[in-house]
Amino acid sequence: MTFDFDVWCSQKLACVETALDGFIDASSPADMGVVMRYGVLGGGKRLRALLVFAASEAMHGNTDAALRAACAVEMIHAYSLIHDDMPCMDNDVLRRGKPTVHVAYGEAQALLAGDALQALAFEVLTPDAEAIPSHVQAKLCRLLARASGLDGMAGGQAIDLASVGQSLTEAQLRRMHELKTGALLKASVEMGAACQASFNGALDVLKLGGLAQYGSAVGLAFQVVDDILDVTADAATLGKTAGKDAAQNKPTYVALMGLDEAEKYAHQLLDKALAALDQCDLTQDTALRELAIRLVKRQS
Amino acid sequence: MTFDFDVWCSQKLACVETALDGFIDASSPADMGVVMRYGVLGGGKRLRALLVFAASEAMHGNTDAALRAACAVEMIHAYSLIHDDMPCMDNDVLRRGKPTVHVAYGEAQALLAGDALQALAFEVLTPDAEAIPSHVQAKLCRLLARASGLDGMAGGQAIDLASVGQSLTEAQLRRMHELKTGALLKASVEMGAACQASFNGALDVLKLGGLAQYGSAVGLAFQVVDDILDVTADAATLGKTAGKDAAQNKPTYVALMGLDEAEKYAHQLLDKALAALDQCDLTQDTALRELAIRLVKRQS
Repeated sequence: MTFDFDVWCSQKLACVETALDGFIDASSPADMGVVMRYGVLGGGKRLRALLVFAASEAMHGNTDAALRAACAVEMIHAYSLIHDDMPCMDNDVLRRGKPTVHVAYGEAQALLAGDALQALAFEVLTPDAEAIPSHVQAKLCRLLARASGLDGMAGGQAIDLASVGQSLTEAQLRRMHELKTGALLKASVEMGAACQASFNGALDVLKLGGLAQYGSAVGLAFQVVDDILDVTADAATLGKTAGKDAAQNKPTYVALMGLDEAEKYAHQLLDKALAALDQCDLTQDTALRELAIRLVKRQS
Repeated sequence: MTFDFDVWCSQKLACVETALDGFIDASSPADMGVVMRYGVLGGGKRLRALLVFAASEAMHGNTDAALRAACAVEMIHAYSLIHDDMPCMDNDVLRRGKPTVHVAYGEAQALLAGDALQALAFEVLTPDAEAIPSHVQAKLCRLLARASGLDGMAGGQAIDLASVGQSLTEAQLRRMHELKTGALLKASVEMGAACQASFNGALDVLKLGGLAQYGSAVGLAFQVVDDILDVTADAATLGKTAGKDAAQNKPTYVALMGLDEAEKYAHQLLDKALAALDQCDLTQDTALRELAIRLVKRQS
């Protein structure tokens, strides 16, 4: 039977949406669950979740662990968007074609919903049930925490804030994006691989290394394409404000290298991601390949 | 040799301060580490850390795990204060006798530093080293995540926000505080107990149950005393703005039951905490006893 990537995507998207719906209780204290659900459900490409699923399947991972890991990375991603959109940060009013969380519910609720989503991500990774071995739970928390904090997403966001109006070298720009968006995308791949329940000794070191390289390349490619789309797409297609980076004088790959070179660079990174799969005998893994290709060719 | 509680406290406080100093790197991206250190180091009673140490010692826990758990709860506590003080929440300018983080560094930095501290708490609980068994790492993450999120601190904060100017019943007020401050204080005790590295089967169920009861009583007593001090202490002693709850028309135990009854209630809760220790053969545990007593008798 041929692998149908579109069918695979639809199935996984349905799984993660149902699971997220179940994990965030609408009847929670002071309607906080309603605010969290608004920020998480019913939108987004779920790229991080798809990377978790693809990597887990490539490594024959524990399926419950993969589902929880997929929800956890999406919760972290959603919380970061909620906080980034707030007036004291990017002050954005439109996200996925809807008013941002603080516009819809107020700043205090947005702040708290983001905080609660970060905690929920780690709660989802550490169920009481013995179905997921504790060493897998601990490793998933370790990967997610590192990718979310000072040496990952939050650190990258801090550099981003500090660099508005500054001119960065390519190395500085790459470092910012490796942290800001790359770390969580790479962690999604590594968390998927970590769902394999064998103890460390038995893990396939070659495959883990290849997947980490794949994750790094895909993470950076994502950001380069994001910068390109900020210039080439319109708000209706993007579902968020377009042209914002240039308007805020933010350093981007397009500003640094021009549109043509940025597009070339995105394709080089795609080649690098696919080569990493080849080198660790995952050439035949259609989901990982297709995810990388579609990520670079996306229009929004 | 007699146990000297004051010496014990000084030793533990020095340990946790040194460890926190080591965990938060000042040279991190865009000075974010500097902001985090400002919010965490050099202040606070470290009550949560002391509860972790006391419970861990009562259960003969792994000392490295206890130190990491102590730092993790203090990081969560510090992040919650940083976010609570922000203009969109309590809008407070003074904390531990110093300008609050957003006053000193700006709102965006305060928001990000809080976010990064929450992630760091989970990172600290999940070291690569095998010195802490993975089932202990997973359990510590589980307890901390539950106590921090929607069914704990963040949920309580949401109720608090929603209840300004409302009149609450005692049951509603207790529920708010059980979540807002009680959950993390109770989790501190439970995380200390979880540092015992034996697998579940070998754990002392009686002692764990007693410690959980102790943690609940101490958590609630802390808040009742907080409400009393908001009325009776001045800003210089408190290190934060006094009389704020009443000014903001926030529901408190003093507003609900009057000062005398609130003081009686605090002592009843202390008795309950001490009785819980007696019932699980931890009567002789001086650190746990003294912590409960001093918490109720504190002046700031």
